[in-house]
Amino acid sequence: MSAPMLNHQCRLAARPVGLPTEEDWSLTEEPVAEPADGEVLVRTLYLSLDPAMRGWMNDAPSYIPPVGLDEVMRAGGVGRVVASRHPDFADGDHVSGLLGAQEYSTSDGNGLIKVDADLVPLPTYLGTLGMTGMTAYFGLLDVGALGEGDTVVVSGAAGAVGSAVGQIAKIKGARAIGIAGGPEKCRCLIDELGFDAAIDYKAADVARELRTHAPDRVNVYFDNVGGDVLDAVLTRLARGARVVICGAISQYNVTERVKGPSNYMALLVSRARMQGFVVFDYAARYAEAAKEMAGWMAEGRLRTREDIVDGGIAAFSAALLKLFEGENVGKLVLRVADA
Amino acid sequence: MSAPMLNHQCRLAARPVGLPTEEDWSLTEEPVAEPADGEVLVRTLYLSLDPAMRGWMNDAPSYIPPVGLDEVMRAGGVGRVVASRHPDFADGDHVSGLLGAQEYSTSDGNGLIKVDADLVPLPTYLGTLGMTGMTAYFGLLDVGALGEGDTVVVSGAAGAVGSAVGQIAKIKGARAIGIAGGPEKCRCLIDELGFDAAIDYKAADVARELRTHAPDRVNVYFDNVGGDVLDAVLTRLARGARVVICGAISQYNVTERVKGPSNYMALLVSRARMQGFVVFDYAARYAEAAKEMAGWMAEGRLRTREDIVDGGIAAFSAALLKLFEGENVGKLVLRVADA
Repeated sequence: MSAPMLNHQCRLAARPVGLPTEEDWSLTEEPVAEPADGEVLVRTLYLSLDPAMRGWMNDAPSYIPPVGLDEVMRAGGVGRVVASRHPDFADGDHVSGLLGAQEYSTSDGNGLIKVDADLVPLPTYLGTLGMTGMTAYFGLLDVGALGEGDTVVVSGAAGAVGSAVGQIAKIKGARAIGIAGGPEKCRCLIDELGFDAAIDYKAADVARELRTHAPDRVNVYFDNVGGDVLDAVLTRLARGARVVICGAISQYNVTERVKGPSNYMALLVSRARMQGFVVFDYAARYAEAAKEMAGWMAEGRLRTREDIVDGGIAAFSAALLKLFEGENVGKLVLRVADA
Repeated sequence: MSAPMLNHQCRLAARPVGLPTEEDWSLTEEPVAEPADGEVLVRTLYLSLDPAMRGWMNDAPSYIPPVGLDEVMRAGGVGRVVASRHPDFADGDHVSGLLGAQEYSTSDGNGLIKVDADLVPLPTYLGTLGMTGMTAYFGLLDVGALGEGDTVVVSGAAGAVGSAVGQIAKIKGARAIGIAGGPEKCRCLIDELGFDAAIDYKAADVARELRTHAPDRVNVYFDNVGGDVLDAVLTRLARGARVVICGAISQYNVTERVKGPSNYMALLVSRARMQGFVVFDYAARYAEAAKEMAGWMAEGRLRTREDIVDGGIAAFSAALLKLFEGENVGKLVLRVADA
């Protein structure tokens, strides 16, 4: 390469206490390395912003090792192959994988999946056809064991996972009730995404609203938020209900003790279960799920919405905060370079 | 009947706040009614004292209606038929059922089960061969989905349900770790009941002890206590673990908000489930379970221990408190009359 290309990166500089601040990150640059034999060099186009990232920043045992200090922040992304010495990838291929919060990455191809930019817009591979959609699909259908005619409640319903959960519930013949913050999000759930009802947790008493909107109680609760909303829904479980623990965004930045669900004994009264899952366990079935969801999208039954933030790698840290401030509707994506 | 027989009863006079006090009960007496056609009159011999009774005293929706004010307290018991106008029961038959906290009860036979006083001592029909044993059996094997080689942890392990859970776990080829309060109970778990390890939660750090005694983590946690012990065990779950919610005796008398499990997100990290159950749902399979457990008892593999309190109906309220003070080892039973 004639002029040295630079790779700008966002690294974890300190372990945050509470909400991450600018001091928890460092922006670095280094020359782009040429790919070795068997490697591929990828230009990052879009990065996924996920609530789970907050957990990866903690030095605590979890389902995946924490990001080390001074390491490039872990992030899923979609990119374009710009140099390949790998037989399975050619220049110009679009790929998705854990590219990291950086402009360029090299890979031995492990975990890199080719995606078709003509089928759907590239950010959709981070949303409905990516981890987000997989999380909604397997969480609702497999962990939640959705049955036809069930009443499904999902929190964080205007978020990336939540909006897919409600729509999949409807497609599968269930009743879908979304919990979200603010009238605009609630309107979107009903008018754009076809939810049967929406509850604005900032304005309404969630348990009381559920009495109205879920008179036969709740068969599946897909929880993205934890805290008081989880406690409210626990009071309205149907017998044999399934509570799917996908996340707890209300608790990720607390500096005191996490608020556990005070009403967990409702699991006994309702003979219900509360179950956690990690989407990576379903990797062998991603293709099957993506195919079904792509079909629903083509039929116009599953709508996907991305909230695309500009500003490149330098904007990574600010973009992440949007998630915790509840500002995004749909999948939050950072544009790193033009496709 | 020549001289009027009197029935002494313990009734719920007020809804307790925190631990029940003497003021929450009233002792009443009334003449014993002769059984009508199709009815049977039962003399109470033993009454079961159960942590669940505390929940029945609250005016809150649950798996069973609350005991009404001024009603005879709900209680399971074993008694002797003293007058029968029911074709299925004869004078002198021993029966178990919801006799109530009283000396005599009449019944249409519904829910009344004949028991054999020659097979095992009568209090055992309130313990291992009664609701207690059924709770341990179905909670561990069905809800907990016990597998051979699993590590089982049970709290309230010296109590009636807990001591059966640990022994059944051992019989089924699992490793059994009991959590109990005080060195005497812990010694009993190991020396008398064959547990592999015991943790005194009053003296030790439960999570740290589990690191020693359950190096491969916990596959089934059978929880009778809730609170901090539940939180500690959640940190040591194995992947795919089952947390069986049977009770929460540490929380039944709290007057503030119940302490929910702060570490519930361990369910996600461990892909684990937390599930509640009500033993009454297994009524159709009681006979099958009782037969298997009676066999284990006959073989000397399942030891049953009753803690029998004297004093009759007047001692009911004081006896119940023993449960919450953690004073009993094994099944707590009140003797109401001599067999």
